[in-house]
Amino acid sequence: EENQGAKGYAWFMAVMPWLAMFAIGLATGIVSFGIFQAVKNLAATRFALTFWMLDHVSLGAAFAAYAAWAGVSVGIASLLVMGIEPVAGGSGIPEIKGYLNGTNVHKLMRLKTAVVKVLGVIFAVSGGLTCGKEGPLVHTGFALAGNIVHLPKMATACATRASRKYWQAFRSDVHKRDFVTAGAAAGVAAAFGAPVGGVLFALEEASSYWQLQLMWRSFFCALIATFTLIFFRSGSEGSWLDLSSPGLITFGEFKPNAYRLWELIPFLGLAVCNNALCRWRRDHIEKAATIRVLEAVAIAVLTAALSFWLPVALQSCKELPARLSVDDAEHYHRFLCKPGEYSAMANAMFNTQEDIIKGFFHIEDPYPIPVLLIVLALYFGLATITYGLAVPAGLFVPAIMCGCAYGRMAGEAMDSLFPSADIDSGVYALIGAATALGGITRMTISLTVILLETTNDIQMLLPLMVGVIVSKWVGDWFNISLYDLHVELKCIPFVENNPPAGLERLTARDIMVTPLVTLPHLVTVGAVYDVLVSTSHNGFPVVAHRASAPAPQQLLAPPSSPSSSDPRLVGIILRSHLLSLLRHRTFYHELDGPDGSPVLDLAQDASIPHVLDFAPSLSSTSDALATDLAGVALRPGDRDAFIDLRPFLNKAPFRVLLETPVPRVYRTFRSMGLRHLCVVDENNTPHGIITRKDIRTDFTVDLN
Amino acid sequence: EENQGAKGYAWFMAVMPWLAMFAIGLATGIVSFGIFQAVKNLAATRFALTFWMLDHVSLGAAFAAYAAWAGVSVGIASLLVMGIEPVAGGSGIPEIKGYLNGTNVHKLMRLKTAVVKVLGVIFAVSGGLTCGKEGPLVHTGFALAGNIVHLPKMATACATRASRKYWQAFRSDVHKRDFVTAGAAAGVAAAFGAPVGGVLFALEEASSYWQLQLMWRSFFCALIATFTLIFFRSGSEGSWLDLSSPGLITFGEFKPNAYRLWELIPFLGLAVCNNALCRWRRDHIEKAATIRVLEAVAIAVLTAALSFWLPVALQSCKELPARLSVDDAEHYHRFLCKPGEYSAMANAMFNTQEDIIKGFFHIEDPYPIPVLLIVLALYFGLATITYGLAVPAGLFVPAIMCGCAYGRMAGEAMDSLFPSADIDSGVYALIGAATALGGITRMTISLTVILLETTNDIQMLLPLMVGVIVSKWVGDWFNISLYDLHVELKCIPFVENNPPAGLERLTARDIMVTPLVTLPHLVTVGAVYDVLVSTSHNGFPVVAHRASAPAPQQLLAPPSSPSSSDPRLVGIILRSHLLSLLRHRTFYHELDGPDGSPVLDLAQDASIPHVLDFAPSLSSTSDALATDLAGVALRPGDRDAFIDLRPFLNKAPFRVLLETPVPRVYRTFRSMGLRHLCVVDENNTPHGIITRKDIRTDFTVDLN
Repeated sequence: EENQGAKGYAWFMAVMPWLAMFAIGLATGIVSFGIFQAVKNLAATRFALTFWMLDHVSLGAAFAAYAAWAGVSVGIASLLVMGIEPVAGGSGIPEIKGYLNGTNVHKLMRLKTAVVKVLGVIFAVSGGLTCGKEGPLVHTGFALAGNIVHLPKMATACATRASRKYWQAFRSDVHKRDFVTAGAAAGVAAAFGAPVGGVLFALEEASSYWQLQLMWRSFFCALIATFTLIFFRSGSEGSWLDLSSPGLITFGEFKPNAYRLWELIPFLGLAVCNNALCRWRRDHIEKAATIRVLEAVAIAVLTAALSFWLPVALQSCKELPARLSVDDAEHYHRFLCKPGEYSAMANAMFNTQEDIIKGFFHIEDPYPIPVLLIVLALYFGLATITYGLAVPAGLFVPAIMCGCAYGRMAGEAMDSLFPSADIDSGVYALIGAATALGGITRMTISLTVILLETTNDIQMLLPLMVGVIVSKWVGDWFNISLYDLHVELKCIPFVENNPPAGLERLTARDIMVTPLVTLPHLVTVGAVYDVLVSTSHNGFPVVAHRASAPAPQQLLAPPSSPSSSDPRLVGIILRSHLLSLLRHRTFYHELDGPDGSPVLDLAQDASIPHVLDFAPSLSSTSDALATDLAGVALRPGDRDAFIDLRPFLNKAPFRVLLETPVPRVYRTFRSMGLRHLCVVDENNTPHGIITRKDIRTDFTVDLN
Repeated sequence: EENQGAKGYAWFMAVMPWLAMFAIGLATGIVSFGIFQAVKNLAATRFALTFWMLDHVSLGAAFAAYAAWAGVSVGIASLLVMGIEPVAGGSGIPEIKGYLNGTNVHKLMRLKTAVVKVLGVIFAVSGGLTCGKEGPLVHTGFALAGNIVHLPKMATACATRASRKYWQAFRSDVHKRDFVTAGAAAGVAAAFGAPVGGVLFALEEASSYWQLQLMWRSFFCALIATFTLIFFRSGSEGSWLDLSSPGLITFGEFKPNAYRLWELIPFLGLAVCNNALCRWRRDHIEKAATIRVLEAVAIAVLTAALSFWLPVALQSCKELPARLSVDDAEHYHRFLCKPGEYSAMANAMFNTQEDIIKGFFHIEDPYPIPVLLIVLALYFGLATITYGLAVPAGLFVPAIMCGCAYGRMAGEAMDSLFPSADIDSGVYALIGAATALGGITRMTISLTVILLETTNDIQMLLPLMVGVIVSKWVGDWFNISLYDLHVELKCIPFVENNPPAGLERLTARDIMVTPLVTLPHLVTVGAVYDVLVSTSHNGFPVVAHRASAPAPQQLLAPPSSPSSSDPRLVGIILRSHLLSLLRHRTFYHELDGPDGSPVLDLAQDASIPHVLDFAPSLSSTSDALATDLAGVALRPGDRDAFIDLRPFLNKAPFRVLLETPVPRVYRTFRSMGLRHLCVVDENNTPHGIITRKDIRTDFTVDLN
């Protein structure tokens, strides 16, 4: 029967992760579809209202409606974020990077966060803010994945003990990490209709730790998300079985043979220019966190005003090109121009994001260079002030719009320099977008694949690759990526693969923290309590002395004073485990043994904590419990009782020698996803400890 | 000046890897182009000769020429391999997997191996063997990359000491591993015109260790290789600046909207069927290594006979379809049929590989099912006996041909079941090829991207993904991938990420090797010599005793008997370093000190080895030197002299506690690329050692 149980367990562990991936993909796909439909309908209603006012009331009333909608919509988004769940603001990608690197960000994965993120991004994007829905979708997929294990857990709350053991295995950090990684991949897959790009995004941008198995599962998850989204989208357009509708952003089809070798040269120029711009932008992005809601509303109204009045002021009417197909005609906006004309300015501003981008790519009629300059300045400025507002806001779309503007500019310039070459300046806009994204995110292969899957045109592969690589080089010359910048801004202790320059020749001895707070393996309750009160450390090395059977008195030295008699490291114990021991009163009292020598006996009201109490919990409510001393009440006499730490230790913690080179410390930290690393000498005597914070010396703010 | 030197060094280390990547990509692209042109011209000449004989002499003479060409060509390939460099046989991918996992395969990376591989694959493929040029190209890129650092080294042989220090840093194993990984990626990129797929291949299939930086560099390298190949190919076709010519294999364009949702169901069936086939095939693939050249020639003649006489015997002539464009007409072969007819059998057999595959994909006229059955059986059989011959031979193309045959069969069946649905059975052939490849290689995301880049059609993404994932599931149900099977056949100790089932609950204590052979840090020459003679171990833990200043006599305990007085691990020393110490006679003799106590003094004819002598050398000639005791001659009296190991130790070797769980041992091994791991107790006393071989318990053959 034992054997059968093991077999059943193996089956369970082989099948369940795939089922979970299926569920994650399905949930992400459905939620993406909801976001897509809501944004589309809200934005359409907003424009319809504005145009109706324009035709039937007045210009001023039209603007008032347009701006009021923006203010109210963004106000709702901001209120949701600030009032309910501040961690739902922004794109969420820096936090996800931090989580997958090994640092838990509080509440990042709650269902509530996901709900606020989804509602917030709908209102922020449909309110016309210069922000995208892609980053928030990644966070949504991530949070859904983190919650997916609750479903079967609830269903089996009254299950047998055997099956509870199964579910418990699922609660491990390793599985959780796999789920949320796949969820992030599914989010990208749904956002761009790019399943392969999604997996690569999770690999390149988000994850510090990667396994082939995780890759396969993420791939499956991304596939399901893409399928689900496409299925519902084609269903909403009437044909449930036509799978050719793509993701949330699509770039439409480009003409064949749209570039030649020598055209790659201006593509390089694009990449270089962009990064000079991005650098300035990044240096000015941090902001104080005051009156966030009003700020968001103000920016929304400002955005509305600029995108409304600029086309009015600079009408730049142009004649519609002859021979216009119905499809192409969609790209042209008349706005205030005469019939038979269109406003280039309105095309590039007074429009939904997707139509603006498609216009840059596909309108054959040249954009006037001044219009492009104004558009570039506008989006650049708006994107700079928008990212950082208290609304869920992605960076991809603003980056694409900026990149399109200067890419198109380069294309128009080439076209007027070489009029006979039949240049498609829309392709330049695409490359411009790639360089802008590359400069901001520093992704390479995943960005290329995402753009490739979005454009549906493999011919663009080589110019995209060149643009992306060059923009990465140029960007790295100036600074780190925007995501990494935000990881730093948020004080997430992120462990890079390589130590900062200058640390290569140091050893563990140089960067470890001393004096070390250790606990003996047999310790008084009072000592444990005092240590928990006086420090905020998360893990405590546990030591024993070399003498084979020391008397209890000898063991009860104050924990922070390293004993002179050569202690050795026997394990490490977490703060949460110590708290659990205190809470369960797992105390021993000293009794007189039969031969008069002291013997320890479990106190009568104590209970040995069940192993479940130590398992990392997926429910976020445990965050507080795990670190809070408040629930622990000591009774008189408790302080002198003993706790035997030995059954609860992690007996094989990672440890390094004093002489270990710092680069190896970094590699160990990152590839093993550690939180603390004991530093010992050749006698296994602990001398110090290295935590994530210590190896990020550039942080001055303490997270705890 | 010191500071400036450090800055120059940093610059050097930042720029040189990219230059090296450029050179690797360039070299791989040029060599790929050479292979492509040579195979194309030789195969064309062969067919032209055969057809000329057919028209002007007789059927028999035509076959004689056709078969003789095959025999001679494959004979040359096999002679090259067996006579010059046996390691150049096969596809090379299992060996590359092994190398990147941490096991050096002798001569795998020599320039000579690359040359033999290139010439061999040209003759093998143009001789008509059922094998591809893709795997060998990957190995070629890998070997070129391993040799690329020789170029600047030779150029700067007479450089200053400062610059020699720079180059020396490049000789590290880390850089070498990065170079060859990128080389493998460039090989795939050139073979399939799939730069993104190449990087993913290196990531998913080949590499055990992966960093973002390596990904970016591989991406650049693959880009350069693709560019180079495309540049030369378009140049050879007359237009140097038209970049639209793709890689070595191309699948041509598919019609738009070629599948619908419900068609995915037979795609699933394809995947399931294939794997039943592949399983049988894999179980019968090993062969004894005798009379290899004759065997290869025999198989080549057999292949020629079957592909010649089968179309003759079963002519299966069909009328050419009406309305045939010039492009399409290329796909139809008349062979022995009347004018206005074509032979379906000849289309599928008597043809170059690329044309056979394109025929399956693009000929609209249905293939008769019996023809497909015969073709499937033929290719399946030929591929099975061909892979394993002593010629450079890839697996991709045979797998694609088998997959095409049964895919096309499914397509034809669907077409006759649902005649009104306008099914493109060429798409089924493509999915069949994907499932065949997926079943054989178990790659997922990289295979999907490679096929996507090769077909140039993003619409195929979803069916490709489904086919690849299902074939992987089904395949994993039966056995491991063909590459992994060959890794095992070749007895390469490959470390998976997870331990085999059943080992999860063991600890390091259970799998370590005892008794341990240790060396004291101050040791007699005789003891070192004896240990080197009596064992074949590659690394030796070095111990010291706890007493602070032990007398020399006490230290000279025989190395294999663990001392009772509590030794502690102070480091590890490699066999090659011990040999180097013996060779340089770094011996100390015991002298009487000023106060009468014994003092050690360096022998007069000894020299302290320069650190360069310990650096891993890129030249393969050092393999023998590093492990050979022959060059060491001890003089009388030497045996009693001392060696002080302390300056030469690796003082911070990886170590684990006895209680460390086996899964963590595996993870540490793989992610740190270790060769040996010391197992110590809490007192840092070594108890055993774990090597790659120990954690691969399924191997019975000892590599050393």
